[in-house]
Amino acid sequence: MTEFNSKIRTIQWVDNCSRMVDQTLFPYEYKYVDITTGQDMFDAIRNMIVRGAPAIGIAGAHGIVLYALELQKEQFSREDFISKLLEKADYMKTSRPTAVNLMWAVEKQKEVIKNSKSDIAGIIEELKQNGIKLENEDIEINKKIGDYGAEVVPKGATILTHCNAGALATVGYGTALGVVRSAYAKDNTIQVFADETRPRQQGARITTLELTMDGIPTTLITDGMCSYFMKKGMIDMVVVGADRIAANGDTANKIGTYTVAIAAKYHNVPFYIAAPLSTIDTSIKTGDEIIIEERSREEVTHINGKIICAPEVNIINPGFDVTPNELIAGIITEKGILRPDYKSSIQEAFRK
Amino acid sequence: MTEFNSKIRTIQWVDNCSRMVDQTLFPYEYKYVDITTGQDMFDAIRNMIVRGAPAIGIAGAHGIVLYALELQKEQFSREDFISKLLEKADYMKTSRPTAVNLMWAVEKQKEVIKNSKSDIAGIIEELKQNGIKLENEDIEINKKIGDYGAEVVPKGATILTHCNAGALATVGYGTALGVVRSAYAKDNTIQVFADETRPRQQGARITTLELTMDGIPTTLITDGMCSYFMKKGMIDMVVVGADRIAANGDTANKIGTYTVAIAAKYHNVPFYIAAPLSTIDTSIKTGDEIIIEERSREEVTHINGKIICAPEVNIINPGFDVTPNELIAGIITEKGILRPDYKSSIQEAFRK
Repeated sequence: MTEFNSKIRTIQWVDNCSRMVDQTLFPYEYKYVDITTGQDMFDAIRNMIVRGAPAIGIAGAHGIVLYALELQKEQFSREDFISKLLEKADYMKTSRPTAVNLMWAVEKQKEVIKNSKSDIAGIIEELKQNGIKLENEDIEINKKIGDYGAEVVPKGATILTHCNAGALATVGYGTALGVVRSAYAKDNTIQVFADETRPRQQGARITTLELTMDGIPTTLITDGMCSYFMKKGMIDMVVVGADRIAANGDTANKIGTYTVAIAAKYHNVPFYIAAPLSTIDTSIKTGDEIIIEERSREEVTHINGKIICAPEVNIINPGFDVTPNELIAGIITEKGILRPDYKSSIQEAFRK
Repeated sequence: MTEFNSKIRTIQWVDNCSRMVDQTLFPYEYKYVDITTGQDMFDAIRNMIVRGAPAIGIAGAHGIVLYALELQKEQFSREDFISKLLEKADYMKTSRPTAVNLMWAVEKQKEVIKNSKSDIAGIIEELKQNGIKLENEDIEINKKIGDYGAEVVPKGATILTHCNAGALATVGYGTALGVVRSAYAKDNTIQVFADETRPRQQGARITTLELTMDGIPTTLITDGMCSYFMKKGMIDMVVVGADRIAANGDTANKIGTYTVAIAAKYHNVPFYIAAPLSTIDTSIKTGDEIIIEERSREEVTHINGKIICAPEVNIINPGFDVTPNELIAGIITEKGILRPDYKSSIQEAFRK
């Protein structure tokens, strides 16, 4: 494994608290904040101090430990401690009700609580260790994705990415940007083009920040520019993350991804998805079944609090789009790169 | 001719001064300013109070009249008046040295000065009348483009446009948005989707403003969204303007246009250019010969004066891209809609 040593650690359990990068300050500051109570963690998740599905999951898991440490001080019986902690765990899940990774990670902690044979101090230690295990697993999966992905990055390649599927959306390595990191560790002549990713500008605000911090050469472009650079032969491949992948490989990701995929196809530039197997929802047959979230009009009409258009204009703001499998050269997972026909290769990956 | 009665008049000679919309205030205000001296016109052009190639041309023509009115007060001989006015005319051309329409319109006024047989008052009257003639010709050409374009707009169509090829880039009707206006006059069930057009956001700041002022239903979308709506069958055609068209139909227009054209092709949505014949440069064989202007990094890194990315990130900011003729369904001109093979249809249009 050729491992890139990133400066970014989005979230980590340290000194009996959860240390996280405050993502509300991007791109103006990169600052750590120590979360020391369960309620502060609830607020940190709700107010998007931590964002990115895997990172939110870990935050939730840490939050349960913080609640346990608070309840420990109140001298409850073991039985009352457990019942109150399980209540707090369910409350934590409501901090961002649509975040699947949050539900999953909190449930993992609830299992620890329910299955523990230890006293209160022992339960807390088990919860801490489980949180750390979840952190490490996330990084390990990312690094495996990075390694498999690096194999298909040509020497000296320029990689285009959209949105932020980076260290700052995960615990510390990234999926699409994990591929970039692993490729850069092998060949420091590669570089990245980052789409701005309107409306929320995650490419500009987050991707350029984490890549320049890690010393990886990065060029910011606006979303409409990708074809211009592809035509000039300046883009060798595209790698993006995924929010949800159907059983046939159709992939929902941040709005604008599909436009990039079409441009890549037109210019014969390979277009890859990088995502853990947990992103694949085999209960969904095709992308047509994926429901696209409609987001607020202000994301389009305002930037930095200032309106950029006629105030009475109509807005439709889909948060995601679906890239059909025919535009996808491969899906880079921790079990290897899945290739068409995706229906078969996805089934096979889950059997491994 | 089915004519749409627009509220927008970008520039007009009124009461011995040049009345123009102050375009630096968009989208916050729509306000007229009266330019009363030659130097104020020079500054208005330089500071982009007036923008859009055809509008700048008229501004330059008006500026010569304003200089003439000032010189008239100084009691010069006819000979000195003419020589000083021709000097001022050459100075006016330096207000935006790359604006071809400015050079063209100022030269038209210089011809009036040189060919006039009248006294000073008579020369001034001829310059005024010539300015008004240039205004009217611009509107007439736009309306012809609008009429031809309206013929290919399906009943109840949704028209996607990019950047601003509107009334506010011309004297008062528009090229791409001239097609929209003429189509709307025939069928008020049509509507427009306007691309934001990063980096300078002309779609958001200008197109949404002029269309909502004229009561034409308009939805603002970000540049990455076009494919999402095309896939849903929500876009029936694309119409954009042009900065320069080669002899084979390859078209340079605002950056991002080419990406929209590729998406349109993928979804079998017809993609049209709307532009006067004066935009076609038959000395250029193909789009490969068109030199693309590189613009400042701040246009990408800053919005409303605030940085939106890591400050040290690299930027490449091409102002335009070239859409190859194979992606263009037709070029809508004042002489009709040119169709492939463009080399022949362009030659024929110039012979008409």
